[in-house]
Amino acid sequence: MMPRFHTIALLLLWVLIGSWISSVHAGGDREKLLAEPGIYGTFAVFGLDDEWGRVEPSARIARLATLKGVVEQHREHVAIDVYLLRGLSDQADLMFRIHATELRDIQEFLLDLQSSLFGKHLKTAGIMHGLTKKPNYVPGFSDQLKADLKSPSEAGEKPYVIVIPIKKSAEWWGLDQEKRTALMQEHTAVALPFLTTIKRKLYHSSGLDDVDFITYFETSSLEDFHNLVLALEKVKEFHYTRQFGNPTLLGTVQSLDEIIETLAQ
Amino acid sequence: MMPRFHTIALLLLWVLIGSWISSVHAGGDREKLLAEPGIYGTFAVFGLDDEWGRVEPSARIARLATLKGVVEQHREHVAIDVYLLRGLSDQADLMFRIHATELRDIQEFLLDLQSSLFGKHLKTAGIMHGLTKKPNYVPGFSDQLKADLKSPSEAGEKPYVIVIPIKKSAEWWGLDQEKRTALMQEHTAVALPFLTTIKRKLYHSSGLDDVDFITYFETSSLEDFHNLVLALEKVKEFHYTRQFGNPTLLGTVQSLDEIIETLAQ
Amino acid sequence: MMPRFHTIALLLLWVLIGSWISSVHAGGDREKLLAEPGIYGTFAVFGLDDEWGRVEPSARIARLATLKGVVEQHREHVAIDVYLLRGLSDQADLMFRIHATELRDIQEFLLDLQSSLFGKHLKTAGIMHGLTKKPNYVPGFSDQLKADLKSPSEAGEKPYVIVIPIKKSAEWWGLDQEKRTALMQEHTAVALPFLTTIKRKLYHSSGLDDVDFITYFETSSLEDFHNLVLALEKVKEFHYTRQFGNPTLLGTVQSLDEIIETLAQ
Amino acid sequence: MMPRFHTIALLLLWVLIGSWISSVHAGGDREKLLAEPGIYGTFAVFGLDDEWGRVEPSARIARLATLKGVVEQHREHVAIDVYLLRGLSDQADLMFRIHATELRDIQEFLLDLQSSLFGKHLKTAGIMHGLTKKPNYVPGFSDQLKADLKSPSEAGEKPYVIVIPIKKSAEWWGLDQEKRTALMQEHTAVALPFLTTIKRKLYHSSGLDDVDFITYFETSSLEDFHNLVLALEKVKEFHYTRQFGNPTLLGTVQSLDEIIETLAQ
Amino acid sequence: MMPRFHTIALLLLWVLIGSWISSVHAGGDREKLLAEPGIYGTFAVFGLDDEWGRVEPSARIARLATLKGVVEQHREHVAIDVYLLRGLSDQADLMFRIHATELRDIQEFLLDLQSSLFGKHLKTAGIMHGLTKKPNYVPGFSDQLKADLKSPSEAGEKPYVIVIPIKKSAEWWGLDQEKRTALMQEHTAVALPFLTTIKRKLYHSSGLDDVDFITYFETSSLEDFHNLVLALEKVKEFHYTRQFGNPTLLGTVQSLDEIIETLAQ
Repeated sequence: MMPRFHTIALLLLWVLIGSWISSVHAGGDREKLLAEPGIYGTFAVFGLDDEWGRVEPSARIARLATLKGVVEQHREHVAIDVYLLRGLSDQADLMFRIHATELRDIQEFLLDLQSSLFGKHLKTAGIMHGLTKKPNYVPGFSDQLKADLKSPSEAGEKPYVIVIPIKKSAEWWGLDQEKRTALMQEHTAVALPFLTTIKRKLYHSSGLDDVDFITYFETSSLEDFHNLVLALEKVKEFHYTRQFGNPTLLGTVQSLDEIIETLAQ
Repeated sequence: MMPRFHTIALLLLWVLIGSWISSVHAGGDREKLLAEPGIYGTFAVFGLDDEWGRVEPSARIARLATLKGVVEQHREHVAIDVYLLRGLSDQADLMFRIHATELRDIQEFLLDLQSSLFGKHLKTAGIMHGLTKKPNYVPGFSDQLKADLKSPSEAGEKPYVIVIPIKKSAEWWGLDQEKRTALMQEHTAVALPFLTTIKRKLYHSSGLDDVDFITYFETSSLEDFHNLVLALEKVKEFHYTRQFGNPTLLGTVQSLDEIIETLAQ
Repeated sequence: MMPRFHTIALLLLWVLIGSWISSVHAGGDREKLLAEPGIYGTFAVFGLDDEWGRVEPSARIARLATLKGVVEQHREHVAIDVYLLRGLSDQADLMFRIHATELRDIQEFLLDLQSSLFGKHLKTAGIMHGLTKKPNYVPGFSDQLKADLKSPSEAGEKPYVIVIPIKKSAEWWGLDQEKRTALMQEHTAVALPFLTTIKRKLYHSSGLDDVDFITYFETSSLEDFHNLVLALEKVKEFHYTRQFGNPTLLGTVQSLDEIIETLAQ
Repeated sequence: MMPRFHTIALLLLWVLIGSWISSVHAGGDREKLLAEPGIYGTFAVFGLDDEWGRVEPSARIARLATLKGVVEQHREHVAIDVYLLRGLSDQADLMFRIHATELRDIQEFLLDLQSSLFGKHLKTAGIMHGLTKKPNYVPGFSDQLKADLKSPSEAGEKPYVIVIPIKKSAEWWGLDQEKRTALMQEHTAVALPFLTTIKRKLYHSSGLDDVDFITYFETSSLEDFHNLVLALEKVKEFHYTRQFGNPTLLGTVQSLDEIIETLAQ
Repeated sequence: MMPRFHTIALLLLWVLIGSWISSVHAGGDREKLLAEPGIYGTFAVFGLDDEWGRVEPSARIARLATLKGVVEQHREHVAIDVYLLRGLSDQADLMFRIHATELRDIQEFLLDLQSSLFGKHLKTAGIMHGLTKKPNYVPGFSDQLKADLKSPSEAGEKPYVIVIPIKKSAEWWGLDQEKRTALMQEHTAVALPFLTTIKRKLYHSSGLDDVDFITYFETSSLEDFHNLVLALEKVKEFHYTRQFGNPTLLGTVQSLDEIIETLAQ
């Protein structure tokens, strides 16, 4: 439509906010927020409204700059990751994963996001909260399994993200700790071979949401991920699962700049 | 957009309605309504419509003044608390908790709210009703547990609110009172350690709504709250629970003025 | 906003249609339609659209006059009651209960209502149909219970209405008549003490709708109603109930004029 | 609003398309399509959009003429029946029942309907497909029951239509043919007394839709129909029913001209 | 409306993009993508928005050209099939089936589709993903069954498409491979007679979606397809199926040009 102006504006945008780009993913607290127990993780999933498609390119870029601005403004207190779900998940276009020591900080980020010029185009498709904790069952696992779990996953790009909420049955919670440990040991042993190409993170949600867990995965091979889930469906622990997915969120891991570039088109 | 005008209008608003502010939360009946049995409690949850985001700052402030006015006008008969769910719950932005001796009084407040200039932007996300009652099972508890239940919860800010509707199974209601008391004694003993950081209130809903109970919590520690729910999922009484949450409403406790300030932006 | 014009128009409205007011609730057939078996009862629940809130007061009053007109025009053949659900039920503002000897007459009323100027603002939230029948189980009850059932409910205002649809399980219908009579005798004995403050009416819906019964209640005490439902949840017959509510409709009993006055604001 | 023009236009419409009227329901193939096995039947249920209520009378009539035209154009290959659900079913205003030897022919009719000026106001509420087949179980019934099934239903108007989709459980399909025949014999014997006032037709849907059967009824007495369903809920075969209704569609049988007249208002 | 211009524009469209037409379905990789294991298949189902019906014919054709363009642009890396669901499935008008070696390539196609002028009219009704794999159970089948499975399906047009997602129970996955093979052998033997008129393809979805399988069928006879499903409902394996359909997607197989011609009207 106005390709030349479009390009210039895009360049200007990068110049103006260029200095932010690298720092967004390198906040001092970010590593701690992503590694430690006792951290809250929120998954906020949004669709873009019908109007977005009708916004002119230059206005669109101006609005995307407010997205960049809001993320920049909050990165001191919260760690923010973005994912592109559009084309891979129903009714959802973007997912934010936000880590913080208090949910209030996450609420403040999302309030600012939603009242930004870009945020006015977002329709909330779902919000889920969880808490990172020390492993529940690993202390009771065999020494071999404990050792195996320590081998790091393969380095390299893991472009796909999958988020699966899980609810266990009342029967599961009624089992004693020893029995649950035995079942989780079987579950973990079966998952082990897949951990080279699949990175995972667990969030505990009981009371914070209508599910018990949010499971988060990054992978370079969706075929491996499919085979992992298939293997987990076959162990006894799966009989105690009342909800697995619904929704299963699938998307691609992207930097904020890549997302902005995609949405600018 | 018009920052100077915005600020002046905001100040004017505070001057005009400033005298109301302190009184809203100090009505004579408020303490009785919040403490006694036989009181109706309504949880009215609203989302803001898409137009709200497009209202000009000055018009927005004028409309928020009508919210203030409606609350002021009704505070003689009903006790009104407000919560900010936006950013923490799906599709819901605001929650009102209203206590009154008759649901008619609550209906009148909500009618006035919805026909105010501000209320025209509200979309009802859910309305639930309950009734406060004297404890059902405590008289049958052990003396120790009765004594423990009397220790007051820690003073200090409890910024988070959680509301969880609960439906019990037909099997639960088919148990005799003695059996149910025994199950509730186990439930209560497990919950006890968490009551220092978690304040709770129970509403009975059978017949007034599609659930049996509305459980209301305020807490300073969502991690404690998560651990409380986890502990409650492990007692036998949980096997008689058919619905727990769906929705789980999570937000922050705010004064009306704080809410107005947030929504003015 | 034009309060003087508003008041004058309102007065004019009352003058023009004043003669109808008393007669609407005193149609010759009305008593028969409300008392006899073999009568169809339709519960039509509506929400008002977003535009209604933006209609000018004078236009609003003109449109409410068409509501009045449609009700007046049909009252020869159908008995029409109106209820205000707004503020007490989700997504629903108005409920009509219509009795007639044929559902075609009810359809004609609702067609005229929906194509009236007022009706164009109504969004159907739900329509349920039932049929009044002679008591199924009472003939098999004990003489004492039969006698007790004859004592009339207290006179006086019963301002609240509750409508609860019910679906029984296949197991219930598979029981023989004698067994079902015994279970309903227990159900009825438990309900008896509440009938002084609670008026009730039963509609049979199998085949006309996705539920088996529509239960209709008017009460002066919602606390009594809550206790009635609690008592009914504890009898054995409740184990054969697959759906109870979903939705539970709660509102206030109002005359058409009271409703019009409320909606005019 | 232009009543005179309205009337003239209406008359003109009847003149212009008058010749079609009688023929629409008398197509040569119609009788075969309605009587033979191996015919596809589609139930297409529509609501009218909000704009329809705002269309001027003259434009409305012009658009209804396109409905008439589309039906006329397709009646060579498909048999089309129309029903008025408005006022009796939730969110649905019109139902088309279409019979053809191939679903492609039905798709072509619905494509033309939806792209007509009238069709642009239709919102699809549901589409269900079934297939007519020779009776499955009748050959195994007793001679008496076979004879009884041959007595024709009463002549005369049957103004009500009810459509109930049905899904059987895996247990049902796991029974052998002999056992299912015995259960259907009981089912049929119980239904027999109602067939004088109730006409019925069965469509098989497994694989074509998410249900196993679509049951279609026309009746002069909804009370009889209610009693029929009640009787069927009491036989053993009902225990193998996983879905009955949801939705139950209820309306009145109307000619296309009656529908057009109603919608013109 | 502008029939002459309409025709000319349509012709022009064919001239301009005519050279693409044949090639769209003959990409070098297409055959491999449709035949090999380890390929991802995405089913993207869309409805057209209300505006589409109001777009002028000439603008409509221009927008459909962007659909053509996007498909052309991506056919090097992904295999794209289109189906017309309109008139046969609820709320869905179009279905795309896309095969690729990586889901990222499919995401890129769908992003471009949705940001095209045509795509702005699409509302996502559902997106499902699966993976093609070597047969799981065939190696364990009897030699006779293995041989029978090799006979090709009848040549000739198969105009209907049906897509049925399937979820198995935890019990199914808990069975050992031998037991599952025996159950699948019975399932396959029953399906065999139908394979002359029904072509099928299986996609594995566990972890990629909320179902375990997506089953895809093309057939010349929907009656045969109905009988196939009926036969499959009667084998023991069906008792382990928790979801079958919901939705069942039914439509007609069409070339992109046929779809464009239909939507141009």
